[in-house]
Amino acid sequence: MKTVAIRHIDRAAAETIAALEKLGVATVHEAQGRTGLLRPDLRPIFPRARLAGSAVTVLVHPGDNWMIHVAIELCCSGDVLVVACSSECADGFFGDLLAESCKARGIRGLVIDGGVRDTRELTEMGFPVWSKAINAKGTGKATLGAVNIPLVCAGQHITPGDVVVADDDGLVIVERKFADNVLAAANQREASEATKRTRLASGELGLDLYNMRPALAKAGLVYLDTLADYERCEK
Amino acid sequence: MKTVAIRHIDRAAAETIAALEKLGVATVHEAQGRTGLLRPDLRPIFPRARLAGSAVTVLVHPGDNWMIHVAIELCCSGDVLVVACSSECADGFFGDLLAESCKARGIRGLVIDGGVRDTRELTEMGFPVWSKAINAKGTGKATLGAVNIPLVCAGQHITPGDVVVADDDGLVIVERKFADNVLAAANQREASEATKRTRLASGELGLDLYNMRPALAKAGLVYLDTLADYERCEK
Amino acid sequence: MKTVAIRHIDRAAAETIAALEKLGVATVHEAQGRTGLLRPDLRPIFPRARLAGSAVTVLVHPGDNWMIHVAIELCCSGDVLVVACSSECADGFFGDLLAESCKARGIRGLVIDGGVRDTRELTEMGFPVWSKAINAKGTGKATLGAVNIPLVCAGQHITPGDVVVADDDGLVIVERKFADNVLAAANQREASEATKRTRLASGELGLDLYNMRPALAKAGLVYLDTLADYERCEK
Amino acid sequence: MKTVAIRHIDRAAAETIAALEKLGVATVHEAQGRTGLLRPDLRPIFPRARLAGSAVTVLVHPGDNWMIHVAIELCCSGDVLVVACSSECADGFFGDLLAESCKARGIRGLVIDGGVRDTRELTEMGFPVWSKAINAKGTGKATLGAVNIPLVCAGQHITPGDVVVADDDGLVIVERKFADNVLAAANQREASEATKRTRLASGELGLDLYNMRPALAKAGLVYLDTLADYERCEK
Amino acid sequence: MKTVAIRHIDRAAAETIAALEKLGVATVHEAQGRTGLLRPDLRPIFPRARLAGSAVTVLVHPGDNWMIHVAIELCCSGDVLVVACSSECADGFFGDLLAESCKARGIRGLVIDGGVRDTRELTEMGFPVWSKAINAKGTGKATLGAVNIPLVCAGQHITPGDVVVADDDGLVIVERKFADNVLAAANQREASEATKRTRLASGELGLDLYNMRPALAKAGLVYLDTLADYERCEK
Amino acid sequence: MKTVAIRHIDRAAAETIAALEKLGVATVHEAQGRTGLLRPDLRPIFPRARLAGSAVTVLVHPGDNWMIHVAIELCCSGDVLVVACSSECADGFFGDLLAESCKARGIRGLVIDGGVRDTRELTEMGFPVWSKAINAKGTGKATLGAVNIPLVCAGQHITPGDVVVADDDGLVIVERKFADNVLAAANQREASEATKRTRLASGELGLDLYNMRPALAKAGLVYLDTLADYERCEK
Repeated sequence: MKTVAIRHIDRAAAETIAALEKLGVATVHEAQGRTGLLRPDLRPIFPRARLAGSAVTVLVHPGDNWMIHVAIELCCSGDVLVVACSSECADGFFGDLLAESCKARGIRGLVIDGGVRDTRELTEMGFPVWSKAINAKGTGKATLGAVNIPLVCAGQHITPGDVVVADDDGLVIVERKFADNVLAAANQREASEATKRTRLASGELGLDLYNMRPALAKAGLVYLDTLADYERCEK
Repeated sequence: MKTVAIRHIDRAAAETIAALEKLGVATVHEAQGRTGLLRPDLRPIFPRARLAGSAVTVLVHPGDNWMIHVAIELCCSGDVLVVACSSECADGFFGDLLAESCKARGIRGLVIDGGVRDTRELTEMGFPVWSKAINAKGTGKATLGAVNIPLVCAGQHITPGDVVVADDDGLVIVERKFADNVLAAANQREASEATKRTRLASGELGLDLYNMRPALAKAGLVYLDTLADYERCEK
Repeated sequence: MKTVAIRHIDRAAAETIAALEKLGVATVHEAQGRTGLLRPDLRPIFPRARLAGSAVTVLVHPGDNWMIHVAIELCCSGDVLVVACSSECADGFFGDLLAESCKARGIRGLVIDGGVRDTRELTEMGFPVWSKAINAKGTGKATLGAVNIPLVCAGQHITPGDVVVADDDGLVIVERKFADNVLAAANQREASEATKRTRLASGELGLDLYNMRPALAKAGLVYLDTLADYERCEK
Repeated sequence: MKTVAIRHIDRAAAETIAALEKLGVATVHEAQGRTGLLRPDLRPIFPRARLAGSAVTVLVHPGDNWMIHVAIELCCSGDVLVVACSSECADGFFGDLLAESCKARGIRGLVIDGGVRDTRELTEMGFPVWSKAINAKGTGKATLGAVNIPLVCAGQHITPGDVVVADDDGLVIVERKFADNVLAAANQREASEATKRTRLASGELGLDLYNMRPALAKAGLVYLDTLADYERCEK
Repeated sequence: MKTVAIRHIDRAAAETIAALEKLGVATVHEAQGRTGLLRPDLRPIFPRARLAGSAVTVLVHPGDNWMIHVAIELCCSGDVLVVACSSECADGFFGDLLAESCKARGIRGLVIDGGVRDTRELTEMGFPVWSKAINAKGTGKATLGAVNIPLVCAGQHITPGDVVVADDDGLVIVERKFADNVLAAANQREASEATKRTRLASGELGLDLYNMRPALAKAGLVYLDTLADYERCEK
Repeated sequence: MKTVAIRHIDRAAAETIAALEKLGVATVHEAQGRTGLLRPDLRPIFPRARLAGSAVTVLVHPGDNWMIHVAIELCCSGDVLVVACSSECADGFFGDLLAESCKARGIRGLVIDGGVRDTRELTEMGFPVWSKAINAKGTGKATLGAVNIPLVCAGQHITPGDVVVADDDGLVIVERKFADNVLAAANQREASEATKRTRLASGELGLDLYNMRPALAKAGLVYLDTLADYERCEK
């Protein structure tokens, strides 16, 4: 059961994907209603890496990376490998040889709820990886998993072909069918943030920019002059 | 209760603060009798950041950063935001817009027992942050906390106006009223360390420099020649 | 009991050690049958550090680094301090003064299942450390441990004189008596990997390079064309 | 977005659910091809609790349990509340008052990727809970989430109406549409296990019962007589 | 510094303490504005333990329990030992001999941000302990700490003489000077909860009891009939 | 490499083992100089379990329990299975069928640096297990490990035939060749503790029983009368 490899998946438009990459994880996540984030303990192996691409999903079992080999053949240029494990395992499922193979096939990077190794070589190659651990421990090739099935990776449900966006802040998944809507919302948000940034940089307070003072007063915030006032009134 | 914002706090002298920054966390912590450290899982978002400043304390609730906006208005140039949460939460409470606002007000940096996002932008801005997590997950503005009350952040009790010192080694709090005493002790320690550093660098052993040999002998340390001797006598 | 310091240990040949350093942790670990790794949560304090050397083992107790002073005297040039603690403790057992002393004695670096401090200075000195934590909290000198006894550090049994190899991927121990055999096997593996790297970089698939297709078929992997096919047949 | 409450969900047949409860988590999980488990850190608050029921899914935000109140109204007798949080939070989202309300509506129990409190009262009431934490910290009612949308709870994707099975071993989700197939497979497995249990209890070895000896030999297992033989041949 | 033992502390009235014990942790915590909780990973070593008492605070160092001996002499009947460690340490600082001594002096129980051992004996003696770990590892007696100084234990600032309340839900601190106010508030809350409990047990919904429907509508909660409606409108 | 099963191991005398069981983990650990403890996160699946027996060591790989079947055949009545994994894995390696087999062969219990399942059945059978996790996730039988080789389990080096002692406090290993010495020391300690227990229970203070007052004074402990005295003199 579930030991299948699915050859063809639908993908979002390349321009949509490229635009989402530029916007970055925090903005995209906000734009789609604060959904789609992966667990924050998946971290990039080198700083300032960023990418977006179509997710080719891989389900592996602890201590076994056989399915990653199967998945590479099924990737198109621009795809991102998204690897989940059937139970928690921090072994080094991926290293420089697999990365050579990925680069040769145009794969953009790797997201794995597990460990990787050869991080010096991966960094020199500029092959970006977001992983839960760095671990020299290698894996075997004895147990079948699956490629391109819907799965949960790092707490997020992912359908193959969904867009994965990654940067220093972490990882967000955009459902393929909503990718253009999310892009539009994200662009809008970005524009609105630019104005706010200028105003805040000029010294205007968020309290005024967002008109928070009435809401704070209504919620009952009390301003006191000194700590002594507070100690006098506490409880 | 505790939903207050206190406008005025006492601060240490600017020269004292500047001098503590130069001495760094490890030395200051030693100089005040090995007290005042925050939990070591609060880490800087970029290497070689360092700062010292007067703590403006902020108590937030999980998933809510409303009080940070309130706090920024109450900061003076040179202050440091010190944010604690009423229960453990790694959401991204702070990002580049808030950092713009902080910079505009002269705030030196952020210490948060929670998460931050937009770390690439924060790094480019050179705005230093010590946090428990990096997390693109945003927060809301619906629940009141407090500004400038005494609180516990990352295991350390902090009174607003205490001096927070931060570098690659972590974070230490110096109580405002003892700041000058601690500075004096730290300067003394620094001087004594310089001499020791030279002697150790020249090959003198700590065993001799600190005169440890008699104490080791008295405590019962036995020198053996080889592992075989040890196996012979074990147990 | 166990409060001993052993003066002389056997070491592997310097050329063997140098050659293992070049091969790196992942390759050496594979070459000795996937054994010898330390727990992956011991991480380097700065990137691109690497070393190999003879392990001088140190057993300390929580909050106490006395034995590290004892150990430094017993090191030869080229040795690596390997510090285990009798129970889990993330205190900063080691800082820049001890590092000065280590450098003066030709010690290559430190591996510690505990914390270190003064990481900025250690980085500037180029003194490599693999540790479980960075922590400004200092330690005392009141309780005896041991130097150069066999011990378990970060999940790995280590005999003094074993070769420790360290890089960005983590840490592996090579038993002294097998060091030459492991080196030979690692060289062989390295050669074979070079060929594979070229073929994979040219676009050849791991599936073909490793002849995995028959084994995958035998294990029962089913290729489907689309996700729709999968949903039709699931369960 | 996603701030909805869905009134009606499809449920599996009551007899199917009751039968799955008797079979227990480990057997059901095996019977559906080793899928569907929630993260094992969700543990029962008292031993020997067990249940199965239709999942009414609830998405809450950190520090806020408003949606649980909304969900209770939408439950039928025999349902199980399955609560996920938009980011990691161990607050006590649920206590004895909510449990009274649940019991009054025929709700069987609670599964929550978060904390609960009033565990003594819940135990006395016999109201079973599987949670990540026990925490007296209460939550607010200020932020909307959702009820009965598909979500990920403790690493598992759950559609409202799926069957949740829970016991001392943890939690497994059975997709509603496959519940009868899984039940059939689980019954078959149970029958086969009964025979095996008798044979193993009589002293027959698993090696023989499962005919493992040829596979072990083929995989290359070597039997040696003593540890001395092993040390002689190692490496 | 801080190596002091303070002989006399102020305590709350015995009846106040007894009344707080009966109310329990969750209620007391709510009654004092959701403050005062210790980290929830401090758990009781046996179920259904509960107590309240005046905190005698003890600061120990990792691997060293010397100060607990000093503290016992300074306790009065009805006190509770509250032990914090200068850095994280899970050693077994306390066992059955110390418990004998505590019982002989009328000490009610132990709260420790560290480990304990002899848990079978402690359970048989009915001596309640809330700890972070159970660990057979013993500790030494070589380093001075302090008794009855204000300290932070498990994230909570505690002044000696504050009332510690403990049960299955965890631990809460009530500041001595506010103990009677908190008791009054807690009694009020308890009374109000009794009414609510009856109404909820009769099937009345929290939605109606707390009059949540208008607020939910205003916040924008949308009720849909089926999952299909949701999928139609999503995004 | 290391894919061997060793048939015969040396064991300690049955009376020695039985006597160590009665003494328990904390006493035995003290008696052998505070060595031999396993990591404290290995916990019993039911309270008040205790055992001692000869360790039959098993090295498994993540997600694979094949070697446990091999090991059972090689056990004698009175042995204890001690299972380590080549990398961290919390899968359920062991359940009720394996326990039936173990009971049929006279195996006393299981110690595993991994997960177990069927804990209700194991509890009803009275088959004691110390494990890192409870997890319904099953394992496969595809990868060879080893039986009866020396290994590290939960941070402790174990040679097959060493005596494992287990109770509510955790686990300690006694090296086979020193078992009688350790037993003698433990008996002596037990006798001395009985006297101390009586004296402490009668109200005598540890300060006097252990004659700590002079050492405390020499170390510099200062007694103050009240907190006010302390605040006056601090720093």
